[in-house]
Amino acid sequence: MTRFKALCSYDGTDYCGWQSQVSGEGMQDYLERRLAVILGQPVRIHGSGRTDAGVHAEGQVFHFDGEWAYGPETLLRALRVGFPKTLQVISVEEVGEDFHARYSVTGKCYRYNLFLGQASPFEVRYWWSLGKCRLDVGAMQTAAQSLLGTHDFSAFGASRGKGAEPDNPVKDLRRLDVVQVGPRLTITTEASGYLYKMVRGLVGTLVEVGRGKLSPEAVHAILLSRQRSPLTPSAPAHGLTLVKVDY
Amino acid sequence: MTRFKALCSYDGTDYCGWQSQVSGEGMQDYLERRLAVILGQPVRIHGSGRTDAGVHAEGQVFHFDGEWAYGPETLLRALRVGFPKTLQVISVEEVGEDFHARYSVTGKCYRYNLFLGQASPFEVRYWWSLGKCRLDVGAMQTAAQSLLGTHDFSAFGASRGKGAEPDNPVKDLRRLDVVQVGPRLTITTEASGYLYKMVRGLVGTLVEVGRGKLSPEAVHAILLSRQRSPLTPSAPAHGLTLVKVDY
Repeated sequence: MTRFKALCSYDGTDYCGWQSQVSGEGMQDYLERRLAVILGQPVRIHGSGRTDAGVHAEGQVFHFDGEWAYGPETLLRALRVGFPKTLQVISVEEVGEDFHARYSVTGKCYRYNLFLGQASPFEVRYWWSLGKCRLDVGAMQTAAQSLLGTHDFSAFGASRGKGAEPDNPVKDLRRLDVVQVGPRLTITTEASGYLYKMVRGLVGTLVEVGRGKLSPEAVHAILLSRQRSPLTPSAPAHGLTLVKVDY
Repeated sequence: MTRFKALCSYDGTDYCGWQSQVSGEGMQDYLERRLAVILGQPVRIHGSGRTDAGVHAEGQVFHFDGEWAYGPETLLRALRVGFPKTLQVISVEEVGEDFHARYSVTGKCYRYNLFLGQASPFEVRYWWSLGKCRLDVGAMQTAAQSLLGTHDFSAFGASRGKGAEPDNPVKDLRRLDVVQVGPRLTITTEASGYLYKMVRGLVGTLVEVGRGKLSPEAVHAILLSRQRSPLTPSAPAHGLTLVKVDY
């Protein structure tokens, strides 16, 4: 048995999310079916974490174990042939069996794309179009800075629902940058980890700050409350991209 | 009755092309249904020309006649509400009844996107991925220049098939630029008009030149033959975008 670490990239628009689905249309299902054909054995893959339906990835990571005598480059080529072009495996490498795509993660980077106006038909899948408006970027930046550091982020995450694995709500938020260039505003975040829907909660909250509906101080108070509040709406999935996973 | 000229933009990926379809899924069908609801009367729209299934547009133009008392800005807003975001009307203006979206055209600009390698999941809808290869851009440029001017372009167009309106094969090709930046190669063309599938025929031919399978001289000979040849393959639809229509 060899353990392989793979990097992949996808446009989440046409998929039901990363996680394996009863319908067999999760990205995990596509990859497992393809690997089973190539390796001639059932394969279970382990992602760095789930991404929701509609969320994209430039650098999702997963690992799997299998018998394969021809080296990772050959495996990569076999994986790329005939695969949906909106889900692409970028690299495959052999790793030690102590590597785990989920448990070995030391940090993750996400980017959220906001468009002030209406994004064109060619960008509408990747940008949340807010319509004609102005956001107070300075206030958003102040609020973002006040969230940096190691905190209980329960106020910005959601419950995965009954039966879900409980997640430690204490995360180290290392970066939360808000940058505007013309009508495009990107929010880039780096953290040790994230609660379910936490990035979308942070972005939705920062947009409320930009609109003047919440002050940066109110955001800090929401963080301290450790309670998900109706004042922290969730931004839609399609603006979100998993950029990078660190190990 | 007022005549309106409208500009629209679309990602052709999920549509069956511009032309009205029996299935009602041509872009023309979507627009006519929406206009009929807004104007409260059946509306027939006339495009500058058809684009095939999968072809995109940054600036397609159409016109229609209708009774509407509230001005073009209000009509535009009504058209934009609730419409598929991958088909967007950009502007609407009143024009004289001598304007015809198809017959008044003086020129059109198309861009074709080629990717030397594999385009990412976020670009794969708009770039023809040729896989790892090099193209001789100098030879492509020489071949392109030899096609400029007023010629019978039958060698690069296709027949629309039985019963189709015959089209004058003599066109004035004013621009055919081949520009490479890193792995991206764009071919931009301006002409008085185009035969059916002519841009894709020109691009497919230039790629053969880039690959060294055809010489620039051979391309000129193909032009003079006025016969569609197996040496001039058609490039796929999804790399093509209608950029602009001139009147």
